[in-house]
Parts: sequence; C-alpha cells; structure tokens
Amino acid sequence: MAQLKDFTKEQLKAFEAEAQKKYDAYVSAGISINMARGKPSSEQLDLSDELLYMSREQFSPFSENGTDCRNYGELYGVDECRKLFGDLLGVDKKNVIACGSSSLNLMFDYIAQCCYAGIGGCKPWMLNEKRKFIAVVPGYDRHFAIAEYFGLEMINVPMTSEGPDMDMIEEIIRDPDVKGMFCVPKYSNPDGITYSDETVRRLAAMKPAARDFRVIWDAAYIIHDFYDEGDTLLNIFDEAKKYGNEDNFIAFTSTSKITFAGAGVSAMAASDANFEEISKRLTLQIISYDKINQLKHCRIYKTVEDVKAQMKKHADILRPKFSTVLEILEKELGGLGIAQWNEPKGGYFISLDVTGGSARLVGELCKKAGLTLTGVGATYPYKKDPEDKNIRLAPSCPKIEELKTATEIICLAVKIAACKELLENK
Amino acid sequence: MAQLKDFTKEQLKAFEAEAQKKYDAYVSAGISINMARGKPSSEQLDLSDELLYMSREQFSPFSENGTDCRNYGELYGVDECRKLFGDLLGVDKKNVIACGSSSLNLMFDYIAQCCYAGIGGCKPWMLNEKRKFIAVVPGYDRHFAIAEYFGLEMINVPMTSEGPDMDMIEEIIRDPDVKGMFCVPKYSNPDGITYSDETVRRLAAMKPAARDFRVIWDAAYIIHDFYDEGDTLLNIFDEAKKYGNEDNFIAFTSTSKITFAGAGVSAMAASDANFEEISKRLTLQIISYDKINQLKHCRIYKTVEDVKAQMKKHADILRPKFSTVLEILEKELGGLGIAQWNEPKGGYFISLDVTGGSARLVGELCKKAGLTLTGVGATYPYKKDPEDKNIRLAPSCPKIEELKTATEIICLAVKIAACKELLENK
Repeated sequence: MAQLKDFTKEQLKAFEAEAQKKYDAYVSAGISINMARGKPSSEQLDLSDELLYMSREQFSPFSENGTDCRNYGELYGVDECRKLFGDLLGVDKKNVIACGSSSLNLMFDYIAQCCYAGIGGCKPWMLNEKRKFIAVVPGYDRHFAIAEYFGLEMINVPMTSEGPDMDMIEEIIRDPDVKGMFCVPKYSNPDGITYSDETVRRLAAMKPAARDFRVIWDAAYIIHDFYDEGDTLLNIFDEAKKYGNEDNFIAFTSTSKITFAGAGVSAMAASDANFEEISKRLTLQIISYDKINQLKHCRIYKTVEDVKAQMKKHADILRPKFSTVLEILEKELGGLGIAQWNEPKGGYFISLDVTGGSARLVGELCKKAGLTLTGVGATYPYKKDPEDKNIRLAPSCPKIEELKTATEIICLAVKIAACKELLENK
Repeated sequence: MAQLKDFTKEQLKAFEAEAQKKYDAYVSAGISINMARGKPSSEQLDLSDELLYMSREQFSPFSENGTDCRNYGELYGVDECRKLFGDLLGVDKKNVIACGSSSLNLMFDYIAQCCYAGIGGCKPWMLNEKRKFIAVVPGYDRHFAIAEYFGLEMINVPMTSEGPDMDMIEEIIRDPDVKGMFCVPKYSNPDGITYSDETVRRLAAMKPAARDFRVIWDAAYIIHDFYDEGDTLLNIFDEAKKYGNEDNFIAFTSTSKITFAGAGVSAMAASDANFEEISKRLTLQIISYDKINQLKHCRIYKTVEDVKAQMKKHADILRPKFSTVLEILEKELGGLGIAQWNEPKGGYFISLDVTGGSARLVGELCKKAGLTLTGVGATYPYKKDPEDKNIRLAPSCPKIEELKTATEIICLAVKIAACKELLENK
C-alpha cells in the first residue's frame, strides 16, 4: 500500500470517510475497555494463588537461620529472600535489601533521601538552587512524577533502539547540577527496548561532574520475557565496577509482575557505600519489613529457575495478547507511513508513535469510543510530549477479544487523525 | 523498711555487701536475658497463626466492593480495613489510610514530607534555619531518632501522671520555630501513662504560633489493655474539632502488637486537609499497599469487638509478666526511696526511675550479669538523660522465670548503685 502522505486529496477524503464510518460504528456500540496501566490480568494473578493458601505443612514462619518472621527483626529482609533477589539481579546478597510490596516506594524514598539528607558526602539536593535529572523519553510517568515532585528539572534524552542517546547523556552529565536519571534498562517502559551492551558499558563508564549523581536502575522487567530467548542485559554492577563507578547505580525490582501486583516483595541492590547510606535512613524509618510475605515467596520460588518457570506461565498468557495487538497494528497501519511501533520480546508495553503531532487527537478519539489509554503525553516529563506523537499501549489486562476491538479502534483513530493532518496541509 | 538514705554508713556497707553477693552469684550463673525491646513473645504470635494458614473457603482475595486485592488499586487501602481502623481510632473511614506493615514508616514519611515539601501552605521545614520539636520525656527512642535525623532540635517536656506538662507546652508553642511533637497518648512509651481528659483537651485547644505545627499522635497501644477496665483516652479529633484544630493532629497505629510484629497492617488518620496533602505524596510514592494482608486481617477481625477479643488473649499472656516484674520491684525496692515506677494497665513497658544519677551504672551492672535492657539514656533525646535516672523495662518477650531472674538482677543493681552513690556522699 502506498504511504498515506502520497495520497491525493480525494483519496485521503475517501480513506478518512471509510475509517470514520467504521469508527462511528464502534462509538455506537458503546464499548468500555481499559488499556491504560501495566496491570496483570486475573488469569496471571491466579498463577500465584498458592501464596494465599499455604498449609502448616507448606509453611513454617521460621526462616533458614531460625528467625521468627512473625516478629520484628532482620531490617534487611529474610536471608533467603535477599539471596533470591541477589541472584535475580546478579549481585551478592549482602548488597541486597528485601523490602515491602512496592519498588516505586523504594525509589521515591531514595530520591527523597538524596533531597533532604544528601548522599555521597554532598549537600542535600534540595539545598542546590538548581537540580536537574535526565529523563529518558518516552519513559515511565511515575518516574517523571517523582522527579517533578522533588523539583528536579528534567532534561529529555530520546530513546534509540539501543537505549538512551548516550552521546547526549555524556554531554549533559558534564553539568554538576545534573544529579542522575531514572531508567528501565530491560524491556523499557514504554518502548520495550533492552539497553545494548554498548549502552550499558557507556552508562557504567560515565564520570558525571556531580559526585552525587545516581542512576535509578529500575529493573522492573528483568525476567519478564515472552520467549525462551529473551533480551539479555549486561550486569550493570559488574560493568560499573570496572570503572570504579558502582556507587553511581542503585537497582530496584519487585515481584509485582511475578506474583501479585502491589502485594509481592520488592528489593533494592546497592554498592557497599550506598548500602550503608541507605541503612542509616532505613534503621530510623522502619523496624523491619513484612518478612512473612518474603518468606512465603521464598518457599515457592527457591531459585531463579523457579521464577523463570513462573514467568513462562505469564509469557503464555501475555504473548498472544501482544501478538494480537501487533498483528492488527501491522495489518491496519503497516506501510502507511503514519505510525511506528516496536515489537517487544518482553515487558508490559507497546509504544506507538504517530506522525504529524496527532497523538492527543488519537487519545481523544479512543476515549470517545470507550477505550481508555495511558494519558497521551504521560510518557514525557510534565506530561508534555513535544512532538505529540507517543501513545503507550498496555495489553496485559484486557482479554484477547477486547484487545482486537481496542486495537482496531486505535488504528482507526490513527488513520482519522493522520488524514485530518494531511488534509490540512494539502 | 527505712529509706536507704537514712541508713548509717555501716548499715549501707552491709546492705551493699549483701546485694553484691547475690549479684555476683547471678554473674557467675552466666545468664542471657533480653528485655530491651517491646517485642511480642512467641506465645502471643501464635495467637495469630490463623492469618498464615487460611484456606480457599476462608479467604477470597476480593474485597467487599469487588476489588481484586491481588492487583494494583485502592491507594488508600481496602475499604473494610479503613473502616476497622476508623472504628479503632474513632474517625470516619474517609479520613483513614490503611497502609503497609509499619506505622513507624508512616511517621517517618510524614515528617520527611514536612521537611522537604512543607505542609499547611508553609515552606519546607528544612528551609527554616531553626526547627524545633517538643520531646515528651521519657519517650520512645525511635521518635527521637527521627527528629534528630531531620535536624529538629528537641526540647524536653517531662511527663506527669496526667501526660506531658501542659503548662510548659503551652509556653513553648509560642515560638514559631516549634513545629510539633511526638506523643504516645495511651499507655505511653515507656511510662505506661494514659493522657488525662484535661491533657487531651489542652492539647486539642493548642494554638501554636507555627501554622505547620503537627502532633504525631502515635496510637500504638490504643486497645492494648491488660484488664477489662482499661485506661480511657478522649478522642483527639473530636476534641480538636471543637477548636477548629483538627489539622494539628495526625494519628498512627498498627496491628504489630495485635497480630504480627512488623508483618501486620498500619494505618493513619488525618483531617480532610491533611489527608489531601498526604495523598499528594502518596500518589507518587506507591501504587497501592499490600491489600492481601489488609484483607486477611479484616476477614479475621471484622469489628473492634473482634480485636478486643484478641487483645484479651494478649492480656492473659502479658498481665502475669508485668505482675511478676512489678511484684519483685515492690518486694525488693519498695519503701527504700531509691526507685520509682508506674503500674501500667496496658501497653508494653514499665518505666523505672532510679535516684542519684545511677541509671547508667544500673544498666552496666545488668549487662555484666547477662541482662540486656533498653540502652540507658535511650528514652531521652540524643540519648542524654539529664538526670541519668530512667530505665525502660520491656517484659513482653522473656518467659516468667526469666523475668523473675531479670527483675531480681535489676533490683540488686539498683541497690548496689544507690549504695555507691550514698556512700560517696556520706
């Protein structure tokens, strides 16, 4: 099929009219589908119901080292849980803290600590007149919201197929006001891109002007592959150590998309120096995290292999959902030159870029047809997508039939918006 | 028995020698007992094992309003859990947020928010050159540690049998640099004193110079009575509303000493305005707390009456422990004029005041005999007990036999220390 931009005015009008007709039919049908958030589906949650219903035979509240997990103690978490997360993240368990149910909370708290207490022997970020943060775009709205809340002025750095534009980053970090960056290095949110070896090495080698520069390494989808051969990500701590830069990175992860969303276990991994600084706060902030939930997880998932087996079950549910969306995108929009998307091999999102600054209009059209998407613009700092092009699709929660309908509506909306834009400029 | 201060030098020496002999016998016996922290005993934890082992028949992960608690959502917690905590605290559920496992974490986070973001439309506390906090003494070491961490200069206000010295507080709050106070209004830590109605009313009526003055109302032992007739505490929010002062108070509690310590559910209650401010942070800090644990708690404890029934079982375990300690204190130290203590009707602690600035020596003697107490001085800000008099006893965890030994050692140590001090001044 020819690219839409090469259509004549008449052809465009006919094309638009057909899309509009189909779109109107969906509006009349009164649909209600939500593709806004990266939530697991009920079917996925069912995979972990064993956690809810353990018998006395399956579960004793005493950990391997004899800790009664029903009582206070073990600020850094249950030993076997630290070990499991250490193995998942590729770090020694002594550098791991197993925490509560939310890794977002851990990231927020760490940024907060940087702001009010300061880290690395530097003054609190709050006391710097200017404090800046690198925002890899498109990215995760909740990361940006934290940075905005703490007054970190965000500097957009675009994603490439290899990860963030490293040339830009290497330039930006020469400014001592630039204090760090958030990133989702594997199956990035929303692009589903895994950082290449070169990108990881360049990040590891960074020598930022700010001594208290920190990369929030959000390993949210570290083991969330759709296929036996998933993307591979270099171990950031191993790489950073080669340059003496391990203090630049703090890694975060959770089982929210392994077991229960918001009711699993989170963890962070940090260098010895960062661990010590975090400990100083932690020892005041909490007596101990919920070790019962940690231990229950460890009784079911004893090794990384056990987690991988669970992730295969998730993949069997997620793969067809992603395929459904991707096939319809290709069938309806392929070759038209009005949209681009990735085909992620894992994670929770598909990132759709539309041409001509029409993303917001696409979002509105979808909404009118009863389809809720992630707020258009949300994948950029301050909710401002400068080119108004990016739309995040979250296919995990709706059923396959719903996804078909939803994606057809999206494609129709993209076509209508593109026609409008092209016709205006004809 | 005559008071020790009226003993002659010779009588004192003989008294000391006898105490020393008994003490030495304990040292030789090689004891190891820990009375440092307010930890529940295994027997108490066993009371809640039902939480660990619920069957499919007992537990569905869907809350009353149909929320799947295995997934994200319900930032303020499961509805029925908010209701239960609301009933416990005497506030409407709309003003309650049911959270994770630690109320200490909630208090820390709130103080942090005051420091970096500011509250009540005022600038962040951190940006005030001076920021002060009232420390009710003796008090909870972890409260003081949080205040110290955030650079809040603490001003000691002594406890009376009615609660903190309100005359002093009413004077201190005229200073706009004074930003608030921590308190444990029922069965205070460590005195076990419940604030009188007059104290609560005066606190409720306070008009501090600082518009962002906040009382951290730590309702840790709100329902933790040893007897059918427990102490009663006025509802702070009801009282404060009479003066339009409900924004001055934030209440915190948890089930750490109802179900599992560090693996229960915590909650906070706040006025509409404070709730809104906390929400602004919370919505960035976390997607949702562990609702599974919340819901499991609510399936077992449907009403305040259910919680009270559980607390009676705790009381049956704790009462004899406290009685054991109190009886030995009375038998060994009563009438000697060298120590004072309260007889709390609930809570987790007995506060022992010794004369003559000898608390530290008592602590050392106990330690040498294998008995670990809360660090002497810890019940005061900066770990500095100006009169070196207060010792916190935590009788909950050791067994009765251990408590007998422990209290005998404490009494011997108090006697020895008192004799030393009196002999020095004879």
